[in-house]
Amino acid sequence: MKIETKIAHFSSPLYLESGRILEPYEIAYETYGEPNDDKSNVVLVCHALSGSHHVAGTYEGERKPGWWDGLIGDGKAIDTNKYFVVCTNVIGSCFGSTGPMSANYPSEESYRLKFPVVTIKDMVRAQMQLLSSLGIYHVRAIVGGSMGGMQALQFAVDYPNFADDIISLAATYATRPWTIAFNKVAIEAIRRDPRFKQGNYEKNAFQEEGLDGLAIGRIAGHISYLSPTSMDDKFGRNYVSNDGLFELFGRYEVERYMEYNTNNFSRIFDPLSYLYIVKAINTFNLSRGYDSLHDAISRIKANVHLISFSSDYLFFPSEMEHIEKMMQRNGQNHTYIEVESNYGHDAFLVELDKFEENIREVLK
Amino acid sequence: MKIETKIAHFSSPLYLESGRILEPYEIAYETYGEPNDDKSNVVLVCHALSGSHHVAGTYEGERKPGWWDGLIGDGKAIDTNKYFVVCTNVIGSCFGSTGPMSANYPSEESYRLKFPVVTIKDMVRAQMQLLSSLGIYHVRAIVGGSMGGMQALQFAVDYPNFADDIISLAATYATRPWTIAFNKVAIEAIRRDPRFKQGNYEKNAFQEEGLDGLAIGRIAGHISYLSPTSMDDKFGRNYVSNDGLFELFGRYEVERYMEYNTNNFSRIFDPLSYLYIVKAINTFNLSRGYDSLHDAISRIKANVHLISFSSDYLFFPSEMEHIEKMMQRNGQNHTYIEVESNYGHDAFLVELDKFEENIREVLK
Repeated sequence: MKIETKIAHFSSPLYLESGRILEPYEIAYETYGEPNDDKSNVVLVCHALSGSHHVAGTYEGERKPGWWDGLIGDGKAIDTNKYFVVCTNVIGSCFGSTGPMSANYPSEESYRLKFPVVTIKDMVRAQMQLLSSLGIYHVRAIVGGSMGGMQALQFAVDYPNFADDIISLAATYATRPWTIAFNKVAIEAIRRDPRFKQGNYEKNAFQEEGLDGLAIGRIAGHISYLSPTSMDDKFGRNYVSNDGLFELFGRYEVERYMEYNTNNFSRIFDPLSYLYIVKAINTFNLSRGYDSLHDAISRIKANVHLISFSSDYLFFPSEMEHIEKMMQRNGQNHTYIEVESNYGHDAFLVELDKFEENIREVLK
Repeated sequence: MKIETKIAHFSSPLYLESGRILEPYEIAYETYGEPNDDKSNVVLVCHALSGSHHVAGTYEGERKPGWWDGLIGDGKAIDTNKYFVVCTNVIGSCFGSTGPMSANYPSEESYRLKFPVVTIKDMVRAQMQLLSSLGIYHVRAIVGGSMGGMQALQFAVDYPNFADDIISLAATYATRPWTIAFNKVAIEAIRRDPRFKQGNYEKNAFQEEGLDGLAIGRIAGHISYLSPTSMDDKFGRNYVSNDGLFELFGRYEVERYMEYNTNNFSRIFDPLSYLYIVKAINTFNLSRGYDSLHDAISRIKANVHLISFSSDYLFFPSEMEHIEKMMQRNGQNHTYIEVESNYGHDAFLVELDKFEENIREVLK
């Protein structure tokens, strides 16, 4: 299938949870498959911190497919022969939706640190606007992992009649201090990097040489996406063969992996967007705006499917179980599985074969 | 008791595992209590990454006692009425023993990055020299947690007849990639900090304004020393009351804790020492120099006491159990307890009441 990114322009204001507004704003998105006549076959997919709207298919001339390509396509668990799949780039991101490097209209200057804080609630509201603009007022399902799973749950709470099914993977009901602490490494590393210049760096300043602060913060991120056991399996105590064991900066394989991935990442991801998205993750709390978590959860009318991963060291299975127990006590429709996996948090991206049948079942 | 740091000077070479030598070298140490006539009452205590030889008592005019003061003293688990307690500063450190900022004799210039890599084996060998210089050729017990626990185990393997009892807390048999990854944050953050100047910073350059790279690396460290649950208990999702929730750099309590502790630390700890000690931790592997881990463990003649902590996210209980099972199969004298604690790796420093009786029992 031919894949292309579309940009929707909105001139009406987006009211943010902070009380500030975003006006005008744009949302980048992709769609796969075709809507049926009554648009009753829409599946919305929500992306995670470093992801984008490019969830499936491969751009012409490129080799790397979208981040959940294994799950979405012809005959796959989210079958594009049956479903019209929509994925948007979250506001605040750097892949086409309005973010801190966008122009602060009517000025042509980038917002930078003047960009308003956005929350998971705001990301969800923006997606509602996008779907409305496409004439979609109800969806068959909303699916997402990690920050995408937060969005799926936030949809379920804020817009109880909007989706039939909610599938949330590797997420939580509110971000715990453990995760906030991992994000703190990135926040401090970016802020204190002299090349960050309090956000006043040149556009594309880091395309050649990524921002060290972002790369360093991303190492902490990668730790939280893996697990002790997955690192044992993947790297063990193997040493990079050309590095001497008694050289101070000689490296273990795990160190080389961290260097390689994070240096690449720091060339393609905007550090201001990283700060804003991390802030959205930190402030995620399903109960905010409601009397209690119980009050928030009780609003849900969709059938909620919670999927956790046994070795997830970022959002632990116990956090999903907390939601599960609450829904169970309330007699709300839901399913819960804890997938056995050694891959840590990353499992939602790499161990598709362990949960794709569950998604297929929901969409049957 | 009056506490003072002593410095022992050695003009003979210290042969390092790398094949390099340290000559001359100095070891800073403290002692508490008095040796008996035949010096059969010596207890050696080994410190962790950020620790020093100042393990007990309080310096005149200061308020903060040594890092294990609750365990060592008059009538305490390691009773200074009975035992002569010795604690040395590891080589490579910045608290008085020879390290990267020491003069590279015969030059008066600091070693800096020319300092040889030192290992846990080397730290242990240096302590053997110090004890020999004090006329101590056998000790009643060796006790340590984290990197100190690694040293205790390394003593047990390398010098099987040297100690009657070995007490190793919150340690492992070989550092896993999980821990190496946490250390990688510090290594990269320090190296890439422009003020680090490839190690050629002015002496005392960071006393007023700590090195950002060290502070950032230390945030990752603190994550690994705590646990998800301890952070829930300690901070929850509490927000710093003066910071607005929708300010980008507004902070959760856990973030303020990280800032406060790591900024302080970066003013008092030398970044080169941090890199060298982290390298020693990364390269720790009891089996190196022996045919296998089993071969190394089989050498042990001391009675080994292994203490792990249920919520330790840096060195997991399963790692201590691995040693335990091996000793059990070999029929070697040992005990093992997993202490129930929410405090994570830090438990070995803060939950003394949960294991002090075990130490008292060993020393009875």
